[in-house]
Amino acid sequence: MTAFTPEIQVAIARTRDDVARLHAELVRYELVVWTGGNVSGRVPGADLFVIKPSGVSYDDLSPENQILCDLDGNVIEGTPGWERSPSSDTAAHAYVYRNMPEVGGVVHTHSTYATAWAARGEAIPCVITAMADEFGGEIPVGPFAIIGDDSIGHGIVETLTGHRSRAVLMQNHGVFTIGKNAKDAVKAAVMAEDVAKTVHISRQLGAPLPIPQTAIDSLYDRYQNVYGQDPTGALK
Amino acid sequence: MTAFTPEIQVAIARTRDDVARLHAELVRYELVVWTGGNVSGRVPGADLFVIKPSGVSYDDLSPENQILCDLDGNVIEGTPGWERSPSSDTAAHAYVYRNMPEVGGVVHTHSTYATAWAARGEAIPCVITAMADEFGGEIPVGPFAIIGDDSIGHGIVETLTGHRSRAVLMQNHGVFTIGKNAKDAVKAAVMAEDVAKTVHISRQLGAPLPIPQTAIDSLYDRYQNVYGQDPTGALK
Amino acid sequence: MTAFTPEIQVAIARTRDDVARLHAELVRYELVVWTGGNVSGRVPGADLFVIKPSGVSYDDLSPENQILCDLDGNVIEGTPGWERSPSSDTAAHAYVYRNMPEVGGVVHTHSTYATAWAARGEAIPCVITAMADEFGGEIPVGPFAIIGDDSIGHGIVETLTGHRSRAVLMQNHGVFTIGKNAKDAVKAAVMAEDVAKTVHISRQLGAPLPIPQTAIDSLYDRYQNVYGQDPTGALK
Amino acid sequence: MTAFTPEIQVAIARTRDDVARLHAELVRYELVVWTGGNVSGRVPGADLFVIKPSGVSYDDLSPENQILCDLDGNVIEGTPGWERSPSSDTAAHAYVYRNMPEVGGVVHTHSTYATAWAARGEAIPCVITAMADEFGGEIPVGPFAIIGDDSIGHGIVETLTGHRSRAVLMQNHGVFTIGKNAKDAVKAAVMAEDVAKTVHISRQLGAPLPIPQTAIDSLYDRYQNVYGQDPTGALK
Repeated sequence: MTAFTPEIQVAIARTRDDVARLHAELVRYELVVWTGGNVSGRVPGADLFVIKPSGVSYDDLSPENQILCDLDGNVIEGTPGWERSPSSDTAAHAYVYRNMPEVGGVVHTHSTYATAWAARGEAIPCVITAMADEFGGEIPVGPFAIIGDDSIGHGIVETLTGHRSRAVLMQNHGVFTIGKNAKDAVKAAVMAEDVAKTVHISRQLGAPLPIPQTAIDSLYDRYQNVYGQDPTGALK
Repeated sequence: MTAFTPEIQVAIARTRDDVARLHAELVRYELVVWTGGNVSGRVPGADLFVIKPSGVSYDDLSPENQILCDLDGNVIEGTPGWERSPSSDTAAHAYVYRNMPEVGGVVHTHSTYATAWAARGEAIPCVITAMADEFGGEIPVGPFAIIGDDSIGHGIVETLTGHRSRAVLMQNHGVFTIGKNAKDAVKAAVMAEDVAKTVHISRQLGAPLPIPQTAIDSLYDRYQNVYGQDPTGALK
Repeated sequence: MTAFTPEIQVAIARTRDDVARLHAELVRYELVVWTGGNVSGRVPGADLFVIKPSGVSYDDLSPENQILCDLDGNVIEGTPGWERSPSSDTAAHAYVYRNMPEVGGVVHTHSTYATAWAARGEAIPCVITAMADEFGGEIPVGPFAIIGDDSIGHGIVETLTGHRSRAVLMQNHGVFTIGKNAKDAVKAAVMAEDVAKTVHISRQLGAPLPIPQTAIDSLYDRYQNVYGQDPTGALK
Repeated sequence: MTAFTPEIQVAIARTRDDVARLHAELVRYELVVWTGGNVSGRVPGADLFVIKPSGVSYDDLSPENQILCDLDGNVIEGTPGWERSPSSDTAAHAYVYRNMPEVGGVVHTHSTYATAWAARGEAIPCVITAMADEFGGEIPVGPFAIIGDDSIGHGIVETLTGHRSRAVLMQNHGVFTIGKNAKDAVKAAVMAEDVAKTVHISRQLGAPLPIPQTAIDSLYDRYQNVYGQDPTGALK
């Protein structure tokens, strides 16, 4: 087991708390069933992240059974929970942390409406202002990729790099979201499903009206910079 | 800080209680996700209203962190919660209170089905009797307007002035409702989503039957005047 | 106040308990919002029924604030709760009790999917076996009728008399269900919404397959006579 | 009453606990309403299974009122709960246990989306990776069959024998799932409804993209063999 400085030990403990607790938001908003879905958070100041164990019920998650990994997705031996397997999506999370240094949190779900768009390989058009606020435009589609190598991680990074959206619909699969920390990524997962549902329902009875690009830009700029109690987003 | 009379202090305290507590109804009826949506209430006997703070979780709302504003939407310095920013929709609420003196409560949500109609810019037709009771006819659409000036508030007031409906679908945005007090506006938000959903679902498989205008008028008249325990609406 | 025998007093108390408690099932199954919807129960052995007060929140219902009425829908003065107005649908419930002596419970809701069919004036076809079990065939549509006279009650009775279904979709309005007691009518309300939703969703993507009439008859006969712990239906 | 060895008595007690407790998952995931739906579990090491009593509320289930049956579906006299009738679907469960020795749990529900596909007699195509993981391909349709003889059990066994799917849509009826134990069958019921809903919603706005058969095979193989904490599936 690696020896961590006291500062890193504190950062790990906080990240374990955050990640364990934030999984409850996936349940609250009905983004997951059974043991599906996962949240991870980068440990500030270290090349480490914390992720959900694989195949464990949401009722049984605790800070102690979250799993600490390095940025190659290897479990750090001897740390709490290390005897268990990390989420089967760990390689994809690790790839994102290695390649997007500004990302502090990653979430994956098969939430119903987002996955329904993903199954058609269709981006969600930006036709409601909440979507302009949160995603700055459409939610894009990433490639079809299956577990086994870096193809899922690569597809996420390739799609989201340079894109305003913090959410990507992985074709035939589900949604991955990123954020500056785990909470921010969870918020993106909640909002992605919310807009996926609203736009789906709107389209069922006709064509939603487009929002002019200048209005999308203006809404995105305001929301990212002045909304909430703290422009750094800590309280968002 | 302005010095308030004891009567106004009591009225402020009651309005804080009401507004804080009524936000739980938005959660109960799943009209909001994360920190979206807001309720405000006019302080009876004063040119003041109380509104939700911006970007704060519904779990963390209390009477003390609601924010007291004047009718221009300025936070009253030195009052509880004043260090935080009020809802980013405060200007729209303030505009309504300034221009519709009979309004004592305002609610804004992005509830799914109402927003789906709003994204198409389509009014909800009055094809169920509960809608005739509550809204006296269709729920109208207001203009596309974005945050930054008085255009949202102006759109709400222009659409609802002289209209039976207490709800307006703001195009590509969401729903605003008004009421004689905050509870009445929350009820309108709950009912607007309920009828938006029912009429949407009805239309998915065909054309709902129209209700004759004389029946709509009769239902609206009865409901507004004799329903519930108290014709003033206090118990509605 | 009428003097009741001790036996009738006990029967009234039990009916108050049942009716107050059963309203919670409407909330649990999300058949109602705000103060909409109502349950009533006939008092066994008397020409009386107990019904929900008008415009009172579901959180505030108790045996003591349910309202005792005679079969003309008149409140029995001096009994608990009598100062309040009974449900605005009381006349319809009373009409059913007067004209269908075998009915011991009545429920009314605007549950979403049932009301969506009602808004199109379309009966729900019997294409799932649970519907054959419970309703013995289609759920029929009753006439458009508004509050103010006996037209709603008359429409319910006319539609359901001699029909297997214990549920009727009142056009543009909502659903009324009947049962041998209040619990049985609540079960019918829950099942009516469940099948209304399932058949709606099935039809969205094509035509459900018909069930042969002989199979419908066989299922209905079995379910009504042998299902559950007690053929009298007490435990259903 | 048969005399059981102490080992079998322990196995029966554990199965009663599991079966009673697992019914709560049907409620949690809203797969059932009122008293519909049922879970059973085979008693390891004995020709016995435990099943829900008929027509009893989910609130009232306990280990003691579950019912012990032999593989012909006969209640074992004198055991706890034996005075009550077992689920009306007991014959179907028994048929599966008799004919599929590898099956340790059976679940039946009328969950909304699965039943909607069943009402059209249409298999759910495998267009999302979670479905490839869990079911290894499409969820097939079984024959129309009604209660009264072995036709339901026969239809389940005939459809699922040699099929990767642990779920079958019984035409016009609902869904049956099997598993290596009761928990595994409940998981299949939860996942079947989840994918039935997602694929339905995806198809509402167009054609979901197919997943190549080689990818389906690869996903199924990985998920069945390496997912979760324990390749035997005990923790899944």
